Amino acid sequence: MNRVCEILGTEYPIIQGAMARIADGDLAAAVSAGGGLGIIAAGGADGDWLRGQIKTVREKTDKPFGVNIMLLAPNVEELIDVVCEEKVPIVTTGAGNPGKYIPKLNEAGIKVIPVVASVALAKRVERAGAHAVVAEGTEAGGHIGEATTMALTPQVADAVDIPVITAGGVADGRGVAAAFMLGGEGVQVGTRFLVAHECNVAQAYKDMIIKAKDSSTVATGRSTGHPVRVIKNKLAKKILDLEKENADQAMIDELCTGTLGRAVVDGDVDMGSVMSGQIAGLVTKEQSAKEIIEELFKEAEEIYENRSGICRSGRAV
Amino acid sequence: MNRVCEILGTEYPIIQGAMARIADGDLAAAVSAGGGLGIIAAGGADGDWLRGQIKTVREKTDKPFGVNIMLLAPNVEELIDVVCEEKVPIVTTGAGNPGKYIPKLNEAGIKVIPVVASVALAKRVERAGAHAVVAEGTEAGGHIGEATTMALTPQVADAVDIPVITAGGVADGRGVAAAFMLGGEGVQVGTRFLVAHECNVAQAYKDMIIKAKDSSTVATGRSTGHPVRVIKNKLAKKILDLEKENADQAMIDELCTGTLGRAVVDGDVDMGSVMSGQIAGLVTKEQSAKEIIEELFKEAEEIYENRSGICRSGRAV
Repeated sequence: MNRVCEILGTEYPIIQGAMARIADGDLAAAVSAGGGLGIIAAGGADGDWLRGQIKTVREKTDKPFGVNIMLLAPNVEELIDVVCEEKVPIVTTGAGNPGKYIPKLNEAGIKVIPVVASVALAKRVERAGAHAVVAEGTEAGGHIGEATTMALTPQVADAVDIPVITAGGVADGRGVAAAFMLGGEGVQVGTRFLVAHECNVAQAYKDMIIKAKDSSTVATGRSTGHPVRVIKNKLAKKILDLEKENADQAMIDELCTGTLGRAVVDGDVDMGSVMSGQIAGLVTKEQSAKEIIEELFKEAEEIYENRSGICRSGRAV
Repeated sequence: MNRVCEILGTEYPIIQGAMARIADGDLAAAVSAGGGLGIIAAGGADGDWLRGQIKTVREKTDKPFGVNIMLLAPNVEELIDVVCEEKVPIVTTGAGNPGKYIPKLNEAGIKVIPVVASVALAKRVERAGAHAVVAEGTEAGGHIGEATTMALTPQVADAVDIPVITAGGVADGRGVAAAFMLGGEGVQVGTRFLVAHECNVAQAYKDMIIKAKDSSTVATGRSTGHPVRVIKNKLAKKILDLEKENADQAMIDELCTGTLGRAVVDGDVDMGSVMSGQIAGLVTKEQSAKEIIEELFKEAEEIYENRSGICRSGRAV
């Protein structure tokens, strides 16, 4: 039995990425009903909103689901209280070490799976009692670290005993198969779910993902040490220009205020922040969350069968 | 038959990375004799040096080998003449489209395999007559693009009919297996060969690679649009500070002059440029080139056998 499926209680070893302002109860319910682990992104939201989204998921499916909590959120304690009261099955976390919350979460019957971008943090969260880790490569969308998935997954897998779930660069069966070869025991997929029928992001945002190419994303904010991967649009170019000119950080912050909502809700994909993974170039059509999950694993199986002989057959011996 | 082995004439579908100032005839001969394609890095060298290294390889092995030519080298025409006169079996190229040299190289019986970092360049070099492409992810050492291997290999594989050779992030059997899953038909490995017994780089450089962790490399030069991945040492931190301060480019250039030789030849790993891939954290011991190649593919085979069932067994159905 795959350890990730065992921990998550899902049919497939896949977690939906916690896209801030996007991943609500509708998307989480569709992913969970489709055999994966749907995630409500609580970053930037208040307790009442979160409670409402949890209710939405439970009305639509009795399958397990999760909530992602950004540890830098000013109301992190409130959000922790809500997931404990609601006895959410899984909590994933971003931006640090959730160690101090793990005892309380475990007491409420909640399993904790932190998202990490380095070996050091993976080891720290394992010691703190995490059930698994999501190792997120720099090709992922939104807030990112520096190590790529090819470099990060095997190094984290060597460093911890808990299962590693690979995130960053996984949008088709090839990515799923590669993640397993690298030492992952599951995958987290964000960008491909952005275009799920059940994803409530603006249509213009979905269209931008579908027409993206390999070179369409860029990391802004590298000069501040807090890089964010977005589609290269007017806003992103403006930010990069300001960073290059070594402009005042307050000026950049002001330019960025409200831009995620502008893209997600208003569909302004020129001056809004269109967060996306580098793998958007492989995302070519809108589908239901269930279709996406089934296609990912069906493709991965075919790839194992077709490709595992390639290497050996290459040998002249 | 693996198409990369067919093109290269090698036992294993593996090319040794063209580490500038490091990859000489000794290393190339050892890799070729070991079953891969050894490469002499001609970047920064003159025609006489290159001729001497080609002679060295031929004295040590009768197996096929290659020469890498940086297309921005001021003496590129001279180097092209040397490889044609010497009838080197394979030429790999960096920094652009070798299209205008391909007819001349083909006439001399030379196959051309450009290193590319984007889908657009892969398509251009295919049209120009390249026999295969090396798709190099940003996790590679030295001069790099932005797309990671997880994102680049499948997108290039979809875009061209010639074989794709995966570079960036491959240092053990897991990386080899992942590369094949992503759509690669071969791999290019640099960092792991840095610590080959037959590699003539300074011992202090090898030691630095062996003690590296997942977070040990950094990309300098991003502000100039010409990023270079190196081990984060005193020199790298100084460059990054200057870039952050938006310092004069001439000042940065002066600081960088001669730093590759300082690390490679003098073994000054504090103020020298220690180019390395992000995967250095997986490189833990010195071995012969032949041992490295055999271990990579033996591990990859074991991984196919052990892991291809994981995904399926995870399903509760």
